[in-house]
Amino acid sequence: MKKKEQLNNVSKLKVIPLGGLEQIGMNITAFEYEDSIVVVDCGLSFPADDMLGIDLVIPDITYLLDNIDKVKGFVITHGHEDHIGALPYVLKQMNVPVYATRLTMGIIENKLKEHNLINNTKRKVVKFGQSINLGAFRIEFIKTNHSIVDAAALAIYSPAGIVVHTGDFKVDYTPVYGDSIDLQRFAELGKKGVLALMCDSTNAERQGFTPSEKTLGKTFDTIFAEHKNTRIIIATFASNVDRVQQIINSAYKYDRKVVVEGRSMVNIIETASNLGCINIPDNTLINIEQLKNYPDEKTVIITTGSQGESMAALSRIALNMHRKISVGSGDTIIFSSSPIPGNEKAVTKIINELLRKGAEVIFQDAHVSGHACQEEIKLIYTLVKPRFAIPVHGEYKHLKAQAKLAEELGIDKDDIFILSSGDVLELNYEEAKVTGKVPVGDILVDGLGVGDVGNIVLRDRQHLAEDGIMIVVLALDQASGYLVSGPDIVSRGFVYVKESDELMDEARELMRGVIENCLDRGITDWGKIKNSIKDALGDYVWKKTKRRPMILPIILEV
Amino acid sequence: MKKKEQLNNVSKLKVIPLGGLEQIGMNITAFEYEDSIVVVDCGLSFPADDMLGIDLVIPDITYLLDNIDKVKGFVITHGHEDHIGALPYVLKQMNVPVYATRLTMGIIENKLKEHNLINNTKRKVVKFGQSINLGAFRIEFIKTNHSIVDAAALAIYSPAGIVVHTGDFKVDYTPVYGDSIDLQRFAELGKKGVLALMCDSTNAERQGFTPSEKTLGKTFDTIFAEHKNTRIIIATFASNVDRVQQIINSAYKYDRKVVVEGRSMVNIIETASNLGCINIPDNTLINIEQLKNYPDEKTVIITTGSQGESMAALSRIALNMHRKISVGSGDTIIFSSSPIPGNEKAVTKIINELLRKGAEVIFQDAHVSGHACQEEIKLIYTLVKPRFAIPVHGEYKHLKAQAKLAEELGIDKDDIFILSSGDVLELNYEEAKVTGKVPVGDILVDGLGVGDVGNIVLRDRQHLAEDGIMIVVLALDQASGYLVSGPDIVSRGFVYVKESDELMDEARELMRGVIENCLDRGITDWGKIKNSIKDALGDYVWKKTKRRPMILPIILEV
Repeated sequence: MKKKEQLNNVSKLKVIPLGGLEQIGMNITAFEYEDSIVVVDCGLSFPADDMLGIDLVIPDITYLLDNIDKVKGFVITHGHEDHIGALPYVLKQMNVPVYATRLTMGIIENKLKEHNLINNTKRKVVKFGQSINLGAFRIEFIKTNHSIVDAAALAIYSPAGIVVHTGDFKVDYTPVYGDSIDLQRFAELGKKGVLALMCDSTNAERQGFTPSEKTLGKTFDTIFAEHKNTRIIIATFASNVDRVQQIINSAYKYDRKVVVEGRSMVNIIETASNLGCINIPDNTLINIEQLKNYPDEKTVIITTGSQGESMAALSRIALNMHRKISVGSGDTIIFSSSPIPGNEKAVTKIINELLRKGAEVIFQDAHVSGHACQEEIKLIYTLVKPRFAIPVHGEYKHLKAQAKLAEELGIDKDDIFILSSGDVLELNYEEAKVTGKVPVGDILVDGLGVGDVGNIVLRDRQHLAEDGIMIVVLALDQASGYLVSGPDIVSRGFVYVKESDELMDEARELMRGVIENCLDRGITDWGKIKNSIKDALGDYVWKKTKRRPMILPIILEV
Repeated sequence: MKKKEQLNNVSKLKVIPLGGLEQIGMNITAFEYEDSIVVVDCGLSFPADDMLGIDLVIPDITYLLDNIDKVKGFVITHGHEDHIGALPYVLKQMNVPVYATRLTMGIIENKLKEHNLINNTKRKVVKFGQSINLGAFRIEFIKTNHSIVDAAALAIYSPAGIVVHTGDFKVDYTPVYGDSIDLQRFAELGKKGVLALMCDSTNAERQGFTPSEKTLGKTFDTIFAEHKNTRIIIATFASNVDRVQQIINSAYKYDRKVVVEGRSMVNIIETASNLGCINIPDNTLINIEQLKNYPDEKTVIITTGSQGESMAALSRIALNMHRKISVGSGDTIIFSSSPIPGNEKAVTKIINELLRKGAEVIFQDAHVSGHACQEEIKLIYTLVKPRFAIPVHGEYKHLKAQAKLAEELGIDKDDIFILSSGDVLELNYEEAKVTGKVPVGDILVDGLGVGDVGNIVLRDRQHLAEDGIMIVVLALDQASGYLVSGPDIVSRGFVYVKESDELMDEARELMRGVIENCLDRGITDWGKIKNSIKDALGDYVWKKTKRRPMILPIILEV
């Protein structure tokens, strides 16, 4: 009964995901208790296939701006783009402090420098086990394992109860750097009583246990032992410091010099090295200019581009467009990665190119995931024993797969919440329910523009991409309303004009007729003339080509 | 010595792939001996990601047209689009006979009817074991197994020797319809002596044996037994008649009515049914209008769209855009397919939508491949024992994987040829070598246009898709050369104009200055004026937005 009475005195905690539940990426979740808001993560996502020309996507933070007085700061779980990438854009709109562990903060600081925000942003590096007080909240950082060093889970203490947020994680009993995930702390929190668990769902469809990062040490040793006569090029994720560490270990053991290639990887390795998160033996790293001083079989190149990204180092190498490195039969190329869904074709293209140039390509078994599989997820649930389960990080099918696991572990179906971005989940030990909706959305970043490309512009780009454009331009006399020049028709992306004379001539004749007919009938409303042009030309072109180019009439007044 | 003498009297056989070796799809290979050419298959491929707006891609057949007097006909291995899809387009350019097995011809005839070619095209249905004489060639059709009924391998007899072409195949000891692959015939040919083997490489990276299509019968029975209370919707490939047969078998066993949905599937099932390739019990098939007369748990819908194709039935169902079928918690949806590389994201999107609507989705273990894995490929090599190996059907990495298998089986490295499209491989028992190159390429089909979209148009579409277009239009007086109207700037797909007044106003002012400066300096060459506009506006926009829209100046003369 005591508990019940206590409950009557406290407000409910609100959990409000502002992104990350409809796609991979753009993770950002607000925790609100009375006058305090703490935001966990601030990630970007990469544009969907239909977002033509867009560079990246950031969350709509209207809700935070509307409640700016409440916002105490950003608490960041780890340094991947889908958790920190939107920070510079968001901090330009709201200057609040940022809290993160050491390497995470190092990577954030690189970004803030690029965006000229470093001097105006309050930052605090938090240690594992340490807590920070933010308004009504206390946030504790808990050691986890992931494909980047210094990843943290969070215990979010509020008067309504504790929420445990795993961030992206795996259970690695033998991590390459630092400690294993602090399972004892998860257990202690479970003993205390946890209101809700927000757990990484990325691999919730996969059975079993994700292997330790350290298993790859042996893999690399074996590959190095079997390829003593070729240069070795290894592509992996720029931020996987442990992976780079293990490659360097094998290189050192097999007496090879190492080049790190690709700007993002160079930056992160430098940051990690300054912070002591990676241990590079003296005289092992060389720069790319020094490559020529060593025989091929005494060198290793670690590079970005394992996802087939067209501008990354590996792509440029494969397509003979790299200024310093060319590839041939004396090379063994290892993909220490697996393709992120959507990148399969791009990766295969690179593999084909490398094989064609005579290189040996190894693209299996040189990677382990950074995310927890089913047995690990079950372990965390069993230690934490949450009152409510809120699966996070993943597409709907991943969230659903975790929900199924949670149910198998005895959590009531009604106590499992698969949220949508914008949902306001209010909860205490008594109950949890979605009570409202806040504005959310994708803000598109294109070049310097943030949010100036929206649905209309995208729809135009899609239309232009599909069938091109036909522009009908004419000049009318201001006084008389007569046609004094044109109509001219100019097209782009529609047909190869030089081989379509007849079509274009006929279209021009047709347009002349349509316009003169309008003018003869005394129509002076340009909107009406333009619509007549659009309709007549659209019909004509569809009949002739079964295409629907964008038709754009432009009338000049002389 | 006799053999050698004989050889001196015969010409060499030319094998000339005109497509299919740089990508999946567009399979077409010419076999030439003196005055005879026989063409195996005539497939299309689907557009690459950068071929914006393109519907499909067909091969360049310049070489065949240049040698039209030699061409005896098309010999088709099976009825998939990547082997027959370009036929209607090619037959419009060259009217030669088509030879194929029964269902293959049935599917081809559907296409010829659509294209109004049925009355003008000579066609001959060939039985397994039967041969046809085409000029210097004799072609024997050999029974194989594949994910479509009536697939054939070919033994191509020429005076220079026998080439065995497997087509797409697998070894299925327990096929659903018809006989198992005619391994005895492959063995007999091997005994006779085979000059070259052209073998399917699609699954050459996969170890082991592809399971029999029949194993899925049990899978479907189990799924039907476990889902007695829901409607069942199964998505699979339109042309997989055996798959549809097995679903119908399970439906019949579990007393459910079956609806076939999706135009391409309806057509193929009808054709297969007319030819007796599928056996549908009376009163099992119903049409979609009758669905409402049966309880959900007494119905099965077999549908297209298993690859996430946006216009296919399953997509429309998932997105609530289907006129007759809507989906919810009373549905079990089975993907009897695996995503073709490049379609992963589209498939996942559909799965997420279906799950979100409350349906159960089964997307694993309800599919087997139609292509031979490593052990099957080794079996065929071991039966056929070819003098030369020419891996076909697959991307470079697949061809390379088969080449490695061939080497392991004892074929000399120099006797294995990974060809490129256009290569002319000349061979007899003495030797084989690439002696030349014929023109090949991708002909793009967009709407009614065949080949009128080329690199320039595609580049324009890509440019338009990326950053849109800015059109600068002005009118000059013919006599005086003065600016009499404009410059106006109209943009599409660039920025949201209503929120970018300032940018557009400034750009307009800038353009006025540039044009007047040109005119003041007496420049009358429109090309020069246009270039000044492009340069100045391009620089300005890049500085302001870091985007590069297409800039299109249009000058009218009044």
